[in-house]
Amino acid sequence: MSEEHNHTVTPRNTEEKEKMLKRLKRIEGQVRGIQKMIEEDRYCVDILIQISAIESALKQVGFSVTERHMNHCVADAIRKGEGEASIDELMKVLRQFGK
Amino acid sequence: MSEEHNHTVTPRNTEEKEKMLKRLKRIEGQVRGIQKMIEEDRYCVDILIQISAIESALKQVGFSVTERHMNHCVADAIRKGEGEASIDELMKVLRQFGK
Amino acid sequence: MSEEHNHTVTPRNTEEKEKMLKRLKRIEGQVRGIQKMIEEDRYCVDILIQISAIESALKQVGFSVTERHMNHCVADAIRKGEGEASIDELMKVLRQFGK
Amino acid sequence: MSEEHNHTVTPRNTEEKEKMLKRLKRIEGQVRGIQKMIEEDRYCVDILIQISAIESALKQVGFSVTERHMNHCVADAIRKGEGEASIDELMKVLRQFGK
Repeated sequence: MSEEHNHTVTPRNTEEKEKMLKRLKRIEGQVRGIQKMIEEDRYCVDILIQISAIESALKQVGFSVTERHMNHCVADAIRKGEGEASIDELMKVLRQFGK
Repeated sequence: MSEEHNHTVTPRNTEEKEKMLKRLKRIEGQVRGIQKMIEEDRYCVDILIQISAIESALKQVGFSVTERHMNHCVADAIRKGEGEASIDELMKVLRQFGK
Repeated sequence: MSEEHNHTVTPRNTEEKEKMLKRLKRIEGQVRGIQKMIEEDRYCVDILIQISAIESALKQVGFSVTERHMNHCVADAIRKGEGEASIDELMKVLRQFGK
Repeated sequence: MSEEHNHTVTPRNTEEKEKMLKRLKRIEGQVRGIQKMIEEDRYCVDILIQISAIESALKQVGFSVTERHMNHCVADAIRKGEGEASIDELMKVLRQFGK
């Protein structure tokens, strides 16, 4: 499942991109924040709380990507009569994602 | 549960710290990788696969921090007869973490 | 999100139904198995292993229901030009399911 | 990890047992409820909502068992100087449980 896919992608508009990149930049900063907590020997429970916050933020990014994918790529495939393969492909990732 | 805790922490040794920081640096790099995929309008399923990989790596960091916490802070608390409060505190985070 | 929906449902055929009911009967039996382990004061770790097995089986049932829903109800809605509402509805549940 | 363990178990008192069995009986009933929904060709999203409710209930049972295990078996092992093995055993299950 790790091989890359060459499908036509409906590009995000600038606003969409900025919004998503902002969320990912924040997550990147939170990961650096945990590095600092480890360096400063901060209390483990506080570190776990931060890890849990990043997990939730990351999961929300995943859901946004999933929703957009369904509204664009999966919907296009269904309209072209290729829905089953596209749904099958998405389900493989959701199973991985929801483990 | 977000208020900081002031508990005595058994500091990680240098080797432990380097190992943990290395894992977190890699996760930081993976988050930047997703930013790039968004900028390049890469196929959503490939983005989801990367998000899922980061989630797993992050969860493993969380489990390592949990295990260390149990072996040090919780074990010390139990030996001092303060186990229940320490376990209660950890369970609150595990419930959050395992949602 | 708990209010019932009155949508046209593509009924499962007999074979599909039997397969799904068989899985659910097995899960029902596993839940009774845990009741027995509690009654017999079995070791907690063994109980946790069984709970984890039920969770995985239940998640797979959820993914099967999701996949079928996408192939039938969501696909029909997309073909009728009502895809966005149907995808939005499903995403709400996936966010709940994937928490 | 599936081999049974023979550890000394601190038996639950009657009240504890009844409380836990009541929760598990309710989950058993919820699983039967889903079987009925499948038989009646109910709308998939409503079925998914019920599956998600069972998952949450099951996870809470798991956390209760985990908490009790830590307060009894793990704490006893730590007091006897056998904490590391007991924590290692629990972490294996939490990693499985938190996947």
